[in-house]
Amino acid sequence: MRNLSSDSRLLSLNTATVDPLWSLRECIEGCVRHGVGAIAPWRHKLVECDLNAAARAIVDSGLVVSDLCRGGMFPAADAAGRQAAIDDNRRAVDEAVALNARCLVLVVGGLPPGSKDIAGARRQVRDGIAAVLEHARAARMPLAIEPLHPMYAAERACVNTMAQANDLCDELGVGVGVAVDVYHVWWDPNLEAEIRRAGAAGRLLAFHVCDWLVPTNHLFLDRGMMGDGVIDIRRIRGWMEDAGYDGTCEVEIFSAEDWWKRDPDEVLRVCVERHRTVV
Amino acid sequence: MRNLSSDSRLLSLNTATVDPLWSLRECIEGCVRHGVGAIAPWRHKLVECDLNAAARAIVDSGLVVSDLCRGGMFPAADAAGRQAAIDDNRRAVDEAVALNARCLVLVVGGLPPGSKDIAGARRQVRDGIAAVLEHARAARMPLAIEPLHPMYAAERACVNTMAQANDLCDELGVGVGVAVDVYHVWWDPNLEAEIRRAGAAGRLLAFHVCDWLVPTNHLFLDRGMMGDGVIDIRRIRGWMEDAGYDGTCEVEIFSAEDWWKRDPDEVLRVCVERHRTVV
Repeated sequence: MRNLSSDSRLLSLNTATVDPLWSLRECIEGCVRHGVGAIAPWRHKLVECDLNAAARAIVDSGLVVSDLCRGGMFPAADAAGRQAAIDDNRRAVDEAVALNARCLVLVVGGLPPGSKDIAGARRQVRDGIAAVLEHARAARMPLAIEPLHPMYAAERACVNTMAQANDLCDELGVGVGVAVDVYHVWWDPNLEAEIRRAGAAGRLLAFHVCDWLVPTNHLFLDRGMMGDGVIDIRRIRGWMEDAGYDGTCEVEIFSAEDWWKRDPDEVLRVCVERHRTVV
Repeated sequence: MRNLSSDSRLLSLNTATVDPLWSLRECIEGCVRHGVGAIAPWRHKLVECDLNAAARAIVDSGLVVSDLCRGGMFPAADAAGRQAAIDDNRRAVDEAVALNARCLVLVVGGLPPGSKDIAGARRQVRDGIAAVLEHARAARMPLAIEPLHPMYAAERACVNTMAQANDLCDELGVGVGVAVDVYHVWWDPNLEAEIRRAGAAGRLLAFHVCDWLVPTNHLFLDRGMMGDGVIDIRRIRGWMEDAGYDGTCEVEIFSAEDWWKRDPDEVLRVCVERHRTVV
């Protein structure tokens, strides 16, 4: 059995973890310095630099790109808005290809402005992914639907459980998979079964870790370092391994008042340590 | 078909909505003044007054008690803690009987201190309710399991979906039902089906309304007035009616920075108006 926490080469740094602290180039250098084997850039980090130069820098550093964050945000108030989202997602696919990313993570989007129709938003998400899928398949770039915590249903993503993500994958077919982030799904009583289902379908594309703090002081920017909260990360990691997941373990921590205020080298040092001890 | 928003006699004031503003007696008088037909006291409000005197005041005012908030909080770090919770729930049943409440709402509790074992907490909840059930049945006081939003899984309640609540009811048998609060369940893709399932089993015991604000600034104390957020309350109300729910429509708003800072008579006036226009 593969052990996802046995080697820091299996750890990936999602750039959000040090977002206000480091540029993409600094993130790459930091990963190398700390023995972290992979990186997951957010697209706004790519704006700082030439895309191909970024791709070369990553390759030259020996890093894997666990995923690109993010596509998605499909629902919109009108057809023009939905088309703009589809166009942007096609560009995101191309960027992911340029970076040789393992997949493009989709944060699918919430309710369009002024809408209370969450079932309608979910249909817009399905149709939006379907509209991007041909391009993604041609580019051989898997799309990873990330179910987000239900507290983000209105503003970020109306796909809120692994079951929903799996159902969408069943409906959409080849080229779509799932990104599992413990922060979003740890509470779900069906988590183990739905991870197994995703694994059996060969669609486990990414595994993100952080922790749920008690108390949590902000809905978006108060995620914890692995081990500082209440998520049984090791158990969920075991379910991923049992289900055949063969990617990395990606640390993604949004933490405006704690980790984003520390020395980024300390952040990486703690990530590497906690990956070994609690993931 | 019954119309739950047709008459303010079908509206219930959960005392949390004006918690820092009014005593229980003031809540009773406020309901009468505004034509609100029912009240749902929190237990800490009962401490201010003699229980039997409170019950008499409510009866004399012609108010129905839609439910008593709350029992629950079953998980604990040791057997003594779990027994203390069971004892407290038996007292809560007695208080609900004294008030002639329609049911006792259970906020079941989250993870015990220091625990990451949410499956274990869920077993403790099941066992805790089972331990109270004989007493509740003898007293003919239904226990209403309230699934809470998954963002409360760690601290408040590890029953987080209607499906879980329905499964628990199936397992525990007669005397247990469900309290549906739109704030907690609006995002759930299975909501309509699980309300129908609960209705078919005759276990829809309470219906709580408020709204989900965008943005939401605090995990606990930033609920919105009906109509000010993104929940399609009218649609969910229709599902409750279709499922045969025959209780009241109870307004429960925790709002430290907005409604708790207003004139409580204004709060009730707006509740009555929004009950008619958006619920």
